[in-house]
Order: sequence, then structure tokens, then C-alpha cells
Amino acid sequence: MKKLNKVILSITGLALLMAGCGNLQNSQLNSSDNSNNSSSKATKVQTTGQTNNDYYQGIIRNGQYQVSKARGVNVDNETNQFDVKSFSSGLLNLSKTEFPTNKYIFQEGQYIDSKTARQWLGRQSSNNPDGLNPPDNGQMDPNKRNPIYLQQILEQDFVTDNNNKVNLAGMSIGLGLNSVDTYTKQQYGATYETKISQAQDEQQGKQMATKVLSRLRKMKGVANNTPIMIALYRQSTPDSLVGGTFFAYAISKSGNKLDTWHKIDQQNEVLPVVNNAKPINADVANSFDTFRNAVKQFFPNLSGVTAQVHYENGNLAGMNITITTQFYSETEITSFAQFVASEAAKDLPNKVPIQINIQSVQGMQAFVARDAGSNGFYTHVFGSY
Amino acid sequence: MKKLNKVILSITGLALLMAGCGNLQNSQLNSSDNSNNSSSKATKVQTTGQTNNDYYQGIIRNGQYQVSKARGVNVDNETNQFDVKSFSSGLLNLSKTEFPTNKYIFQEGQYIDSKTARQWLGRQSSNNPDGLNPPDNGQMDPNKRNPIYLQQILEQDFVTDNNNKVNLAGMSIGLGLNSVDTYTKQQYGATYETKISQAQDEQQGKQMATKVLSRLRKMKGVANNTPIMIALYRQSTPDSLVGGTFFAYAISKSGNKLDTWHKIDQQNEVLPVVNNAKPINADVANSFDTFRNAVKQFFPNLSGVTAQVHYENGNLAGMNITITTQFYSETEITSFAQFVASEAAKDLPNKVPIQINIQSVQGMQAFVARDAGSNGFYTHVFGSY
Repeated sequence: MKKLNKVILSITGLALLMAGCGNLQNSQLNSSDNSNNSSSKATKVQTTGQTNNDYYQGIIRNGQYQVSKARGVNVDNETNQFDVKSFSSGLLNLSKTEFPTNKYIFQEGQYIDSKTARQWLGRQSSNNPDGLNPPDNGQMDPNKRNPIYLQQILEQDFVTDNNNKVNLAGMSIGLGLNSVDTYTKQQYGATYETKISQAQDEQQGKQMATKVLSRLRKMKGVANNTPIMIALYRQSTPDSLVGGTFFAYAISKSGNKLDTWHKIDQQNEVLPVVNNAKPINADVANSFDTFRNAVKQFFPNLSGVTAQVHYENGNLAGMNITITTQFYSETEITSFAQFVASEAAKDLPNKVPIQINIQSVQGMQAFVARDAGSNGFYTHVFGSY
Repeated sequence: MKKLNKVILSITGLALLMAGCGNLQNSQLNSSDNSNNSSSKATKVQTTGQTNNDYYQGIIRNGQYQVSKARGVNVDNETNQFDVKSFSSGLLNLSKTEFPTNKYIFQEGQYIDSKTARQWLGRQSSNNPDGLNPPDNGQMDPNKRNPIYLQQILEQDFVTDNNNKVNLAGMSIGLGLNSVDTYTKQQYGATYETKISQAQDEQQGKQMATKVLSRLRKMKGVANNTPIMIALYRQSTPDSLVGGTFFAYAISKSGNKLDTWHKIDQQNEVLPVVNNAKPINADVANSFDTFRNAVKQFFPNLSGVTAQVHYENGNLAGMNITITTQFYSETEITSFAQFVASEAAKDLPNKVPIQINIQSVQGMQAFVARDAGSNGFYTHVFGSY
């Protein structure tokens, strides 16, 4: 059973409403200077509630979610959409080690605003001295030009109710670095690619991290001893059907000093592999093939079955499977979902989280999932009255 | 925890594989004449597994789902898609009383084939003597013409493993009757509507039911004493955002005799109501409004929140809520899903099944549900690696 926690907090010092229970229960949070809240009026601060210990609660002010000050900057650009999702959720997962979900409340980044983010993501130039990408060297050749290394930047804040104030207690910064930089030689012209090596991304990312850290430390509300994690992410290729992965992180406990860089061993792949490529793990690939073959043939019309597979430290860490088919009735959907759950339990690897989306051209029709820490599969058929 | 049942059966009398456990465990099913299986080769019959006692297991033959002999007939026509879904799942729900999920296996209709279904759905004429809709009387006036009453027909079979054979042990037939018949006076011309009263649908549907029953009794494989349920469904209007409802059913225990017609009291509505309409139940509508107002304002951009609400015998029986909004990160989705789960537990009526789909233009992003018989809400955020 899932716990439903709900904490409603008020700067008047009076908890207005208390429903459910949770780790952050009985807290009364006051807006402090550190919260970057410019309103001088009494602000009612509450949290989203927590449906799962794996999730952070988020900050709500006056009934509205406190969105990022750089909201939409990463979505507006031409980044592969899988990278946008995996970058954001991957940074949050890394943060859980430093800032556990039962001690910290999540806050969307409040210090790097849209203007700053756009400047940092730009090339360095006389007009944009803070650009973290190298200056345009005028070259057009894929191997001679300076590529755009930094494609995305993301700030995530972690706050506590220390001394009844919303205090910034930690921050994570993700730097999303291109593996391929796509460019045109003239507007609307043909597209060219500059390939960027892992070593280049690592060198560039680490240099950028020191600059970002010193800039953050100067910002109002960021204390000299606020722990800041900076993590480097290597984006997937533009046509990839799975996002990139994080490969290194470092912590600054105080000042402008970044502690040792730690290697992060993550790999993503899409199954089935194409062009006779070798899968990362043959056992995982074989078990997926068994599942896929059983599911594919279920209806007279073929079903498409693909998976995003995620590895950490060489071990399978999760699978997201998408099944696309055409259904002709609700009963077909229910029968299919049960068959998929049954085959998944029989064929797919044990113990890792598995998410299976069953969809048609009309959208998602059913879904089957085994969450982290759960043994059985949950099945839901999306009904309609 | 969900149970996963899996029964694999063979006509050779040898159970090839047995994984999991369930009500239908250890059964060995033989293909019998009654199963309408024309193949003389050994057919491997298995079932889909059962993830929830509320669902039927379905029949799989040689690894492939046994689809309806009239597959796609109801989907091809111009029926409101909400009617297609609600007709199919509604008939299955009614069937559960007569043919409990723990005693019967579900089989898609195998007796009324596509050709027969199309003939029965047509108008009666010299070319189509079996048409269940009235002859064309040549009139074009909405109130003088003979409308199309019967819009959909659906057969659902319930089989057992009695004496180690797949035996037809029950059948449900749904007749989907129009509340509005849309027509044109000339091809590609303007659309006109003939309104059909509840009383007309009832009278027509009951007449059709007796014809359908006697035709079914003559079909090969349908025994004289196979229980047959016939249920009458009144379709919604073409622009409705929720499907229609069943209003009557009768059972034939044997022969051409239909026992007493039973009234079915079901109502559907969409919330919020529009044009100052009066909601079916003011308390339900108010609790939904509380929920909707909290959720709508969560982001700076408004979220759309609507619900399909289902009543049985005057009591709330379930809600399907759809929330549409624009997200700018995975963390926004997670925070929103937790807030929605928290508000749902606080604001929405207790004890009834509730399904909340959280979607953006990119499709479903998260979902929150309280299943029948469950106390807490299940929350899932659709992740991507």
C-alpha cells in the first residue's frame, strides 16, 4: 500500500490543515530570505504530499507550484526529448544520495533564471561574456570548428524546514554535454555534425563546473557552505530512442572548492538491437526477445515491442517497454494486458523496476509495472464510462 | 499484491507448462466441437493469466489470442468511440453476475461472424431479410422516416473446462440502440437527426432480442440449454464525452424463452456540467469542483480537468478524471502527480474506483488510481531513460 502524506504549512505559524502523515509532518515553514520569495505578503507554503518514499515532496506557494526560474529553457531548444526527460530524472536520482527524500523537500531551481541560463548556454563572445560554450572560431569544417558542448543546464534545489524556515540546504546542477553537435552552414541549409568524444566532454564539463560553482556562490541566497553537487551528463545522439547518461559528479561542501570527481557508470540501450549490434548484456537481451516474441504474435495484427534498458555499474537497473498495437475492443485490451503481465513475470529479469506501456494510435490503453522494491506486477486497463 | 495466474493447456491431455497458480489451475482443456475450432491439428489452448479477480482470463490458441469472429465491425462504423468502449466493458460487467470470473473463462464472440453482424445491423430488405433495423420507408423527414435503432451488436462467450473440454457455458449479447440517429438526405449532404425515445429503444430492443435469441439457438455449437443473457444499451449522443448506459437485460435458460426483463439503473455524466445544467448528485459535483479548483491552478498555465462519472442504482459507482496540462520537466510531473493524489484522497468521494489520467500533448505522463476494493491511491509517473 502506498502512503499518502500531506503537509500544509503556513507562515503564520499555524498549521492550517493536516491530513495523512509523513516524515515532514508537523513542520511549520516560514518564508525566509533564502527562499527567493519576493512577496512581502504572508505566503502560504505547503508541499505536494509524497506518494512514494522514492519521490521528493515539492514546494507549493499560495496553492501554486513554485516552478523553475528557468522554466522551459531546456524544452525550447532542439534537444532530443528523451534527453530532456532522462537528464531531469537522472539528476534527481543522483541527488537522492546527497539529499535523501525523507530529509529534504524538492524545489525547482530558483537561482539560475531564464536569462542567465540562456547566457550560460550561449557561446562566449563580447556580447555574452558569460557564455560557457567556446567562441565561434569562424570555421565551418566539422573537425575544425568549435562545437557547442553545453546543450542543457539544470538546477534542482533541496530545502529543509530548519528552524521553521524554508532554507536552501542543498543544490544539484546538471550540465548536459553533446556527443554530437548538429549545425548548418547557412540558414535553412543542410545539416552537418561535429562529433565530440567522451574525453572532450569530460574536460570541457569539468572546466565549466568550476565556473558555474563560483558564479553560484556569488548569488544572493546561496550560502558559502550550501552543499552543491555538479553532475556531468553526455547527451544521446539526435536520433536516439533513449536518452544519454551521467558520467561524473563532484560535490562542493563550501566555497569555490569542488571535491574529487566521482565516476558514474551508467549505460542505456534500446532493445531489440539493430544492425547486428551486440547488446550490452546478452542474457537481458535474450529474455527480452522471449517476451517480445510471445507478445508480438498475440493478435493477428503484429504488435511493435521495444525497450529502453538502463544499466548502472554494469547491472541491469530498469526497463521501460513500449508495446504498440491495434485493439478492436476493451476485452481485447484487458486480455492483452493480463497476458503481458503474465509473460513479463515469466520472461523478464527479476527484481528491477519494469514499466510496460500498452498503446494504440488512440493513446495509452493499459499499463503494467513492477515498481522498485515491489515483487508483483500492477496492471491497469484505462477504462471509459 | 496482485496474483499472476497462468494456465497452459493442451489437447494432447498433457499440460505443457504450469507457472503461477489460480482458480483454473491444473486444468487440461481439449478442443471440442463446441469451441468452433475448425483445425483438426492439435491446438494448444492456454489462457491469458489473471492479474485481478475482477478480470476474466481469456482464451489463447497456439500462442495467439482468439479474436472475435466479428472483429472490428463495431469499430468500423460511425459510433461515438466512448460508446464502443463503454458498451464492451459494460456488457462484460453485467456478465460477471451470471458468469463469475472465478468460474468462467472469457472468449471473444465466436458465433456471430462479421458477415452476420453486418446483416443484422442493416435494414430489413429483400436483399437483407435478416436486417434487424426497420425497412427504409422512403421518408426523409426526421419524424416520419424509420430510424436506425440498432447501432452495435456484441457477443461475449463464457467457457468452462468442464470434463476437460472447452465448452461454451454461457453467452452475453449486447444490443446498442441509438438515442439519436444521424443521417444525410444525399451523399455528402447536410446532417440531420432523428431523435429516438427511451420507450422506442426499449420496445425495439426487446423485439430484436427475441429474434436474436432464436437465431442463436439454431447456430452450431450453441446448445439448447446454454444460458444466454441479452442486454439493451442506449447509446449516447454523437458529441457526448461519455458513453451510454445499459437499461435492461433478460436471461434465456433454454430454448427460445427469454425470462423476465430486469431494469438496469445506470447513469453517466460529464463534470463539470455546462450551461447551468443540474448535476445528477450535487455532493459529488461539489467535491469534484473542490478537487478541480485546487488542481487547475497548480501551474502558472491552467490545467484542464474533466470527469466521466458513473452512477448505478442512484449511487456513485466510479469516476474517470482526465487532467491535461503542459509540463516543462519530469520533476514538475512528479510533483503534480503527488499533489493530485493528495488532493484526490482529500477531496474526492470515498470507496469508489477512481482513475486519473495526467496528460500533456505528448501523451500520458502520469496516472493516479484507486482501484475497486482498494483504500489508497496508486501513483505512477511514466519515466524514460
